[in-house]
Amino acid sequence: MNLPNHFELLATDGAARTGRLTTPHGLVRTPAFMPVGTAGAMKGMHWREVRDAGADIVLGNTYHLMLRPGAERIARLGGLQRFTGWGGPMLTDSGGFQVMSLSELRKVTEKAVTFRSHIDGAKVELSPERSIEVQRLLGSDIAMQMDECVRLPAERADIERAMQLSLRWAERSKRAFESASDGYMLFGIVQGGDIPDLRHASARSLTDIGFHGYAIGGLAVGEPQAVMLSMIEETAPALPVDRPRYLMGVGTPEDILEAVARGVDMFDCVMPTRNGRHGMAFTRFGQINLRNARHIDDPRPLDEESLWPAARDYSRAYLHHLVRAGETLGAMLLSEINVAYYQELMQGIRAAVASGTFEDFRTKTRAGWARGDIAPM
Amino acid sequence: MNLPNHFELLATDGAARTGRLTTPHGLVRTPAFMPVGTAGAMKGMHWREVRDAGADIVLGNTYHLMLRPGAERIARLGGLQRFTGWGGPMLTDSGGFQVMSLSELRKVTEKAVTFRSHIDGAKVELSPERSIEVQRLLGSDIAMQMDECVRLPAERADIERAMQLSLRWAERSKRAFESASDGYMLFGIVQGGDIPDLRHASARSLTDIGFHGYAIGGLAVGEPQAVMLSMIEETAPALPVDRPRYLMGVGTPEDILEAVARGVDMFDCVMPTRNGRHGMAFTRFGQINLRNARHIDDPRPLDEESLWPAARDYSRAYLHHLVRAGETLGAMLLSEINVAYYQELMQGIRAAVASGTFEDFRTKTRAGWARGDIAPM
Repeated sequence: MNLPNHFELLATDGAARTGRLTTPHGLVRTPAFMPVGTAGAMKGMHWREVRDAGADIVLGNTYHLMLRPGAERIARLGGLQRFTGWGGPMLTDSGGFQVMSLSELRKVTEKAVTFRSHIDGAKVELSPERSIEVQRLLGSDIAMQMDECVRLPAERADIERAMQLSLRWAERSKRAFESASDGYMLFGIVQGGDIPDLRHASARSLTDIGFHGYAIGGLAVGEPQAVMLSMIEETAPALPVDRPRYLMGVGTPEDILEAVARGVDMFDCVMPTRNGRHGMAFTRFGQINLRNARHIDDPRPLDEESLWPAARDYSRAYLHHLVRAGETLGAMLLSEINVAYYQELMQGIRAAVASGTFEDFRTKTRAGWARGDIAPM
Repeated sequence: MNLPNHFELLATDGAARTGRLTTPHGLVRTPAFMPVGTAGAMKGMHWREVRDAGADIVLGNTYHLMLRPGAERIARLGGLQRFTGWGGPMLTDSGGFQVMSLSELRKVTEKAVTFRSHIDGAKVELSPERSIEVQRLLGSDIAMQMDECVRLPAERADIERAMQLSLRWAERSKRAFESASDGYMLFGIVQGGDIPDLRHASARSLTDIGFHGYAIGGLAVGEPQAVMLSMIEETAPALPVDRPRYLMGVGTPEDILEAVARGVDMFDCVMPTRNGRHGMAFTRFGQINLRNARHIDDPRPLDEESLWPAARDYSRAYLHHLVRAGETLGAMLLSEINVAYYQELMQGIRAAVASGTFEDFRTKTRAGWARGDIAPM
């Protein structure tokens, strides 16, 4: 059964696309980067800073939220957007991926995943139906089907088994989502590891089931970038052209630029905030390690042409000091600088695709990263 | 020799005072509370939030800053106000107190304190002259003399010896400060523990030496509140009426209210940010522990009548969740809520003294704290 389409494709340039996704909590301009607010908060940032940085949508982790403070509780408190004060569009993952990576004693059966909470050791069962129920309780604008993701490299038999299980879970997820209110969306997830024919089969079957949008899962799990890009090339053209395409858990600015060039519309990654907490800044000069001694006496800002005030107003010497001293403000400033850089990149991509100059933008942006940081004083 | 006076007493109400201190980096309304930005940053807060909360002046710790990033380096980078981006008035302590509390292998002689840095173990000597030199390099608007502070309870002989040493260091500090630029200030520090005649002697001798302002040191170091207040009562009247009086390292909102009632003009304390990091909120209902389970389902804000947005806009349930989950945002929100509450208290005190209604304000404020938090839902 086909689902209503809330995505509008505005322009294409080669395989790159720009569009607009309408959610119950607002519009999302694509290509979109979703900063990750794991447990209902963006680490080191106020929500107003996330919005000011240019993010239209953020991601919340179902696994964390279902364990604490609990989906039923968040529902009673008005849903995730109201509970957190973010107010805008939110996408939630299914929880399945983090069950695999964070919990102990997990057991995967056809019916569900059983695991022990990493918080209090309680035994929890997460089925495709419960995952959808939790995401609906959270009030997620975009829910994700539960899937099984296999780390690469892996044997074909294992990849195929997980892909087929994910397809059966996709059907169950869709049935569980049937009674959802108008405007809320459910995305299917393409699996198939690094094997083209499995990717094709997964994409075809998911399209037959029919979702509001489609994610490419099971990448950025240990494979080289070339393999990831090649799998996107295999998968994206096999997905309906009029639906949004979301590459899960990716990535560096370069990953994003290259994935956009291959037809991806949405991204999420913890990298801007996590690397920010470790003293790394993303800039048009590439990644800069503020912990490095070369910055200790440097009165210049990170990037005097940045659109984000903190990248212009604070000296490298001060940022270096904050990082070295372990001051929270260092993590706060670098997290916002990084989220803002990612959003500046997305805005540049959107404008370039809309004006048919994406190749030029891509070349110039990559050249800037390749040149590297400004020379030491 | 008398020093120029930059303090203007605007009104008194009983022993309580309100006034205005002019510093090279701006005006300070008194009674003033100085949030503590230990190592050139306010933990969990942006500088704009410190200003928005109503702080006119902040405190920096000489001990931390001299060890990292170093006073000469900060001077080259334009001074502490420019280096940090705070831009407004800053007071620095002498470094002596933290040498005693944080470093190992310290040795106190007439000449100086020698210690090992808690950062890299390097051997450092801090004399009264070097302390003043460091504070002048930092560009501190208000420098403090180096003193020796004795933890209470202590023997009279120990208290007297430290008080006399502090007086000799006061004279050396003043000489070292003589060539400072116009408008920059040096405060002497009254010692004498919990012994009235030693407090009187210290205050008298410091007044004879002559400083821009006078601090009451050696309190909030383990003694009961009644002893602290009694020592303020002994000391404040012995200080020049036209000069600012600063009670170092104090304290709770109640401590501050009671010290103002006894003639104190300036305060500093890490409590608003430190307690904020530990899930505690200061409010007109007293201190509230957000970690407490009573808040887990409470959709009400901390204080719907607060002047600070975060105290009105976020539910207790969300703050509780952030604290329990260890999210940085919890520490950030509670730190700013607390600094803002302290500033709201100071603004209330200033207005009450100016209008001759301080006793009424004091009674009502204490009654609010005594009533405690709103009833659970």
